[in-house]
Amino acid sequence: MTVTSPKPQFASPSQIRLIPLGGIGTVTKNMYAYEVGDEILIVDCGIGFPDSTMLGVDLLVPDVSYLEARKNKIAGLLLTHGHDDHLAGLPYVLPKLGNIPIYASKLTRGFALDRLKEYSLPANITEIDERPFSVGSFTITPIKITHSVPDGRHFAIRSSVGTIYHGSDFKFDDHPVDGVLTEKDKIASLGHEGILCLLSDCLRSEKEGRSLSESMLTDTFRREIKDAQGKFIVTIMSSNVHRIQQAVNVMAEHGRRIAFVGRSVESNVKTAVNLGFLKLPQKMIINKRQIKHLPPRQVGIIIAGSQGQEGSSLTRAVASDHKDIQIKPPDKVVFSADPIPGNETPVYSLIDDLSRLGIDVAYSDVDDQLHVSGHAYRDEQKDLIALTRPKFLIPIGGSFRHMVQYRKMAESLGFPRHHIALLENGQVVRLTQESLTLAETIPLRNIMVDGLGIGDVGTIVLRDRQTMAEDGIVVVVVPISQQTGKIKGTVEIISRGFVFMKQSRHLVKKMATTVKASLKPGRVLEDWAIVRQQIERSLEKLLYKETQRQPLILTVIMEV
Amino acid sequence: MTVTSPKPQFASPSQIRLIPLGGIGTVTKNMYAYEVGDEILIVDCGIGFPDSTMLGVDLLVPDVSYLEARKNKIAGLLLTHGHDDHLAGLPYVLPKLGNIPIYASKLTRGFALDRLKEYSLPANITEIDERPFSVGSFTITPIKITHSVPDGRHFAIRSSVGTIYHGSDFKFDDHPVDGVLTEKDKIASLGHEGILCLLSDCLRSEKEGRSLSESMLTDTFRREIKDAQGKFIVTIMSSNVHRIQQAVNVMAEHGRRIAFVGRSVESNVKTAVNLGFLKLPQKMIINKRQIKHLPPRQVGIIIAGSQGQEGSSLTRAVASDHKDIQIKPPDKVVFSADPIPGNETPVYSLIDDLSRLGIDVAYSDVDDQLHVSGHAYRDEQKDLIALTRPKFLIPIGGSFRHMVQYRKMAESLGFPRHHIALLENGQVVRLTQESLTLAETIPLRNIMVDGLGIGDVGTIVLRDRQTMAEDGIVVVVVPISQQTGKIKGTVEIISRGFVFMKQSRHLVKKMATTVKASLKPGRVLEDWAIVRQQIERSLEKLLYKETQRQPLILTVIMEV
Repeated sequence: MTVTSPKPQFASPSQIRLIPLGGIGTVTKNMYAYEVGDEILIVDCGIGFPDSTMLGVDLLVPDVSYLEARKNKIAGLLLTHGHDDHLAGLPYVLPKLGNIPIYASKLTRGFALDRLKEYSLPANITEIDERPFSVGSFTITPIKITHSVPDGRHFAIRSSVGTIYHGSDFKFDDHPVDGVLTEKDKIASLGHEGILCLLSDCLRSEKEGRSLSESMLTDTFRREIKDAQGKFIVTIMSSNVHRIQQAVNVMAEHGRRIAFVGRSVESNVKTAVNLGFLKLPQKMIINKRQIKHLPPRQVGIIIAGSQGQEGSSLTRAVASDHKDIQIKPPDKVVFSADPIPGNETPVYSLIDDLSRLGIDVAYSDVDDQLHVSGHAYRDEQKDLIALTRPKFLIPIGGSFRHMVQYRKMAESLGFPRHHIALLENGQVVRLTQESLTLAETIPLRNIMVDGLGIGDVGTIVLRDRQTMAEDGIVVVVVPISQQTGKIKGTVEIISRGFVFMKQSRHLVKKMATTVKASLKPGRVLEDWAIVRQQIERSLEKLLYKETQRQPLILTVIMEV
Repeated sequence: MTVTSPKPQFASPSQIRLIPLGGIGTVTKNMYAYEVGDEILIVDCGIGFPDSTMLGVDLLVPDVSYLEARKNKIAGLLLTHGHDDHLAGLPYVLPKLGNIPIYASKLTRGFALDRLKEYSLPANITEIDERPFSVGSFTITPIKITHSVPDGRHFAIRSSVGTIYHGSDFKFDDHPVDGVLTEKDKIASLGHEGILCLLSDCLRSEKEGRSLSESMLTDTFRREIKDAQGKFIVTIMSSNVHRIQQAVNVMAEHGRRIAFVGRSVESNVKTAVNLGFLKLPQKMIINKRQIKHLPPRQVGIIIAGSQGQEGSSLTRAVASDHKDIQIKPPDKVVFSADPIPGNETPVYSLIDDLSRLGIDVAYSDVDDQLHVSGHAYRDEQKDLIALTRPKFLIPIGGSFRHMVQYRKMAESLGFPRHHIALLENGQVVRLTQESLTLAETIPLRNIMVDGLGIGDVGTIVLRDRQTMAEDGIVVVVVPISQQTGKIKGTVEIISRGFVFMKQSRHLVKKMATTVKASLKPGRVLEDWAIVRQQIERSLEKLLYKETQRQPLILTVIMEV
């Protein structure tokens, strides 16, 4: 006889639980879950970028333990747009959540499939357009929006409790390159029907007024190409299809043959062309291997590496380490992307290196029309509020300081402070038709990807990396006789990254003396943990006194 | 009988040799030498800041080997102004050059003595004002200039060959806080007498127009203090005495008691007050220990840490780790300093942390009048050229991209390109009355200071730190019998910062197997270098395949 287990306790369908798993306060690693009754709807699944303390870490992925424990409740996952911080987490997360149904617009779907292909993962992604569709008992209305990648969407998520407007990264560009405008009328009519809560991109809440239109870049490129005597090289964020389109058009207009250089640029261009989002003048397009066979004045290049990334095509070309592209005077290089905060140093050092080569470099500090933001400025954020007329507001996709500025703006529109929730990742929000309440906080781990390892680098490993990065390591090997329990032979002291040992004989000698003294020679050593501790403490003291450095000290006791 | 050695070959007095030892392309670590005949005159002796590859390095100092080898030729050293990147190298460099005569204005001398005092070094610093003086056969005319520290100087350096105008960091502030204007008439009259070469601050050559006056900060502070309901806390570069003066005045005006917090702020304030460069309303000044005993609304604080430096007073106060100062709502914190390039991440994370605490934070992205630059914009740079009317131009104190922009500007004024020299540190320039020629390049080392060590961290140590920071270290200890030359006992494998070993038993096992296999067990091991190499190669291969990480592998062979 089998016992039927009681139906699990689900959240009551009189409320929506919003669980932000990433994207709040961190800008990147976007992932949000809406839990209504026994269903969960997920929005986005992005990667994040390590901060300076996460040494050696390649990227971060959202901690989906909460969802993993409720796999059977997941109705589906919506992708808002084609940026990696909104979808590139899929290959790491899907193996944990199973082959859940995913919904995305054509280009977003294309980029997501590209990411998954690298890992040969199966995926079940349904292409959506602007028509409403159902996911479990949720009704989703996609809204076309403008952003720095084409074909993005906002989602109005209707549940039995009310409608959430999930307003991820956007701007109101009235002159978009592809002519596809934000569906403002649709937003207004959703607003009329009633929006319980607006989640809104707040990244540019510090900026007054409105962002400029992406389409102004055409004029910029025309201005920059005019005096280019050699190759005309534009570096760009590889997902910015509209900017690539404009650069291509201007290059073709000036009779230049066009090459794409860099893995991410080549892959995104291919997908965007295949799906009809990028129109190339085919007879002007050349393979990057042909660059060196053409006169420089006849070549235009779109190259990856605008963030000064190590190993990127641009960085390698500048270091004369790229087999297809050499940069030399009178070539011109145009940076049509601002450094992402934290990338200033590598970007500027690349600009300096190009300047040193005698290259004419155009970048934002000398031409402020080389880049426009993909994110709504304050007046556009206000417009979204005016159109959606929500009861509650939650700023997303920004740092805490951006949320504070967003709240200031919303208060100036008359929203009471308790109708605006500034969250942290993991802070669960309970929404009813009447109220927004902060519920429990779900503990979230930083899941770090390092090489092939996902989550195997934790705080201890990072702390050790930090210590070794600062001051190196000193390894002490103590041979202890199995028979007598006493030291037998020579204590070996080796260091790496500490001091140049050959020039520090004096110090090495002192270290050996200290280790021996702390071992109380002749005595039988029984508790090795204590032996280790004694050695490490006395060495630490000596080394700090002599060098003011604190290397990691690693004692190896060898039974011989 | 003794043989008189021939008089050493000195540079002919028909030329000036300029030897830039730092400050060209690197912005910081300023140090320049002028060699005429058998005399050398040095200008400045600053520290530099490590880049992101110089892990664990505290600071950089100029490589003065060239000067050390010509100690007896040094006539003296001039200090232009009181910033650390122009004078804080003295404690590291003076022990190598001997107690050479140094010349500095009153405040610059005060700050230099403060730096030297920490090292109990004797110093021979003569106070100068605006009157000409002689150093060896050089005649020096100091010119008062305005900058972000008071009492700065340019120097017209007259030698038998001609006059060099050494135009270090400056701006033309027509409304300086202390009323001490740049001596433009004096510059003009030096220009009339004839300037052979102008060395000019080029840091802001990307900025059109003119920099704003420092004195506008008074209005900014007044605006910011108005709505401050709790403590009014201003963070600032600690050498910016004029800004401290303005903040103090505004705080006093609003009836607030004023405390200084932070080692650098306290020390600089003390020196500036003693020397008459800062006037404090004494009855309003309190000790930082009194802060907590006063109502927050009655307190104003000037605190160090505007760059988000680890361990600074502001960072500690935000982390509730400062015994004298707690920051909590409704306190207000004003950042009156922009992040120095490279410091964006710590500064913004501090602003986010303050926002999270509910503190009202004012910073440049929300109020663009919180900081003005201390450096001349393009029109001021043009003015200096117009006043000095030099034959040759050398931009200094900027990165290469700034020099390129400076050259563009100078060419627009009609200077032929070959009259403008863009240098690198170590590139010697030969100036005659008629010509500027690039001579040899002196090889310069990066002298890194780490703890107490000066120059003992080199490329090998840094490379090891980098590897360990990225992927950790794996230590393999192989016991080899002295008698048989074969392995005796267990091979120990320990790692730090690589993977969490307890969760990676499988991998540890594979590593042990690999090491044993590469040792060809049973065989007599003779050449230990080869043994090491074999172990390291096979482990590297295994680890890259299994983890895609490349930890440092350290093999210790123990004779037992």
